Amino acid sequence: MASQLTGSQIAVVGLGLMGGSLAGALRGRCKQMIGVARRAETVEAALGRGLVDQGFVGPDGAVNQADLVVLATPVRTIVHQLSEIGEMLRPGCVLMDLGSTKAQILAAMERLPAHVQPLGGHPVCGREQSGLEAADPGLFRGRTFVLTPLSRTRPEAIALGRELAEAVGARPLILEPERHDALVAMTSHMPYLLSCALTSAAQAAAEGDPALWQVAAGGFRDMSRLAGSDVQMMLDILLTNREAVLRAVQGVSWQLDRLAQLVEAGDEAALRRGLAEARATRREVFP
Amino acid sequence: MASQLTGSQIAVVGLGLMGGSLAGALRGRCKQMIGVARRAETVEAALGRGLVDQGFVGPDGAVNQADLVVLATPVRTIVHQLSEIGEMLRPGCVLMDLGSTKAQILAAMERLPAHVQPLGGHPVCGREQSGLEAADPGLFRGRTFVLTPLSRTRPEAIALGRELAEAVGARPLILEPERHDALVAMTSHMPYLLSCALTSAAQAAAEGDPALWQVAAGGFRDMSRLAGSDVQMMLDILLTNREAVLRAVQGVSWQLDRLAQLVEAGDEAALRRGLAEARATRREVFP
Repeated sequence: MASQLTGSQIAVVGLGLMGGSLAGALRGRCKQMIGVARRAETVEAALGRGLVDQGFVGPDGAVNQADLVVLATPVRTIVHQLSEIGEMLRPGCVLMDLGSTKAQILAAMERLPAHVQPLGGHPVCGREQSGLEAADPGLFRGRTFVLTPLSRTRPEAIALGRELAEAVGARPLILEPERHDALVAMTSHMPYLLSCALTSAAQAAAEGDPALWQVAAGGFRDMSRLAGSDVQMMLDILLTNREAVLRAVQGVSWQLDRLAQLVEAGDEAALRRGLAEARATRREVFP
Repeated sequence: MASQLTGSQIAVVGLGLMGGSLAGALRGRCKQMIGVARRAETVEAALGRGLVDQGFVGPDGAVNQADLVVLATPVRTIVHQLSEIGEMLRPGCVLMDLGSTKAQILAAMERLPAHVQPLGGHPVCGREQSGLEAADPGLFRGRTFVLTPLSRTRPEAIALGRELAEAVGARPLILEPERHDALVAMTSHMPYLLSCALTSAAQAAAEGDPALWQVAAGGFRDMSRLAGSDVQMMLDILLTNREAVLRAVQGVSWQLDRLAQLVEAGDEAALRRGLAEARATRREVFP
């Protein structure tokens, strides 16, 4: 199939870690890369770093002629922006997003004007850093890029999404929005909550004995890293994926209770089996 | 105080990650570094890598003339070795260990012959790797090296322990064994159990939907890393620190339940406060 991407004018709305990285990864592989941010300093920084060809403060004048618009803001901001920006787009424009949960965004995409082609997207490559400073055009390389079309989404729009994902070095994967949300609840949202719970429990223990932080080494550093994530972004994610997150909490709590019971009972054989199974899984998934 | 270390013959028993790293870090800073392992191949590998001056299979003939013997085996192996090796040592010899829990080891050290100087030790620098291949003389640099003396331990023996810790680039910290064990239960043993629980819960979910591993990215990789730790080492740690580990499990479970309840209730303001507190702690502890 001929490249749609190279002839496309693309507007990325939101120039944080994800938007800035995507713009930088696509610039030069499309006709024109337009960056949109709320603050003039962000637009200037993106131009200064060569991530975009042209920059705008706000979507007016930036998205009207675009062939593809990508919303790269927090999930609930995306939901609000869809109705506003949908009206501005030319017929046939593909309206994509990079939000970390998909069901609520796709529900909002159902209400887009008929002349717009909706396509959910989620490149699975979070970092605990945020903001344009952390943007990196190599961020998507080797990662999975989930695409969640609606039934009304045309094959050409899905093909453009696939081409975009491959152009930034990622592997496209088409999923139903609810299925996506259930999976990332376990692989991403629950790990974040666990990291916060561990960090807060350690902080509470450190109030009783401040020497605690002197014996916190690499293991604790790894396990608390996600607790440093951007709070607004994570709030949006958790509150738009509540049921799946709560099911994942139950799944992990059940496993933790089981291991704790084996420790309490001193059941060495069963504990060894449980720990060895987790080790085998980890080694298989990340060789 | 004059250096005791430079005039000392040191024997390290157990040439895995910790023992091999310690031997390599001290070799050349002491009169002689003797390595002891169970298997001839391990002894040869340590000699081949230049981590020890001399190598022995088993402690016979290796520890008799030593000024300092360091046991670097799993915790329950240390407990067994203490009674066997204690009898072999010359008067005034300092018998140290590198075990990750201290209360049971120090209780066993109380039973050492009176002519031996007991000193618990724990360099806080675990990795999920294990074995001599992973040994690295730089492992201890900038880390805390906990020392747990008994009341019978003479000041000279404690001074030798401090000198050893500083010689490998670590910061010595003297703690009561029970206090040490309570702290590392939260900073090390509990994070390991959490990592196993998350990995096993994800594996259970992946049995229902194998696409799960395709959306597991950096966050999950960090959070599951500790689940790859050596199972025998971790079993020894958990089963010799049961009460403190169970208290830490309770502390983290309580925090997790609290966050899950806020997600369930959709209490955005309180959830934001909870997540922001965890983020602030993380950023303060690891700037």
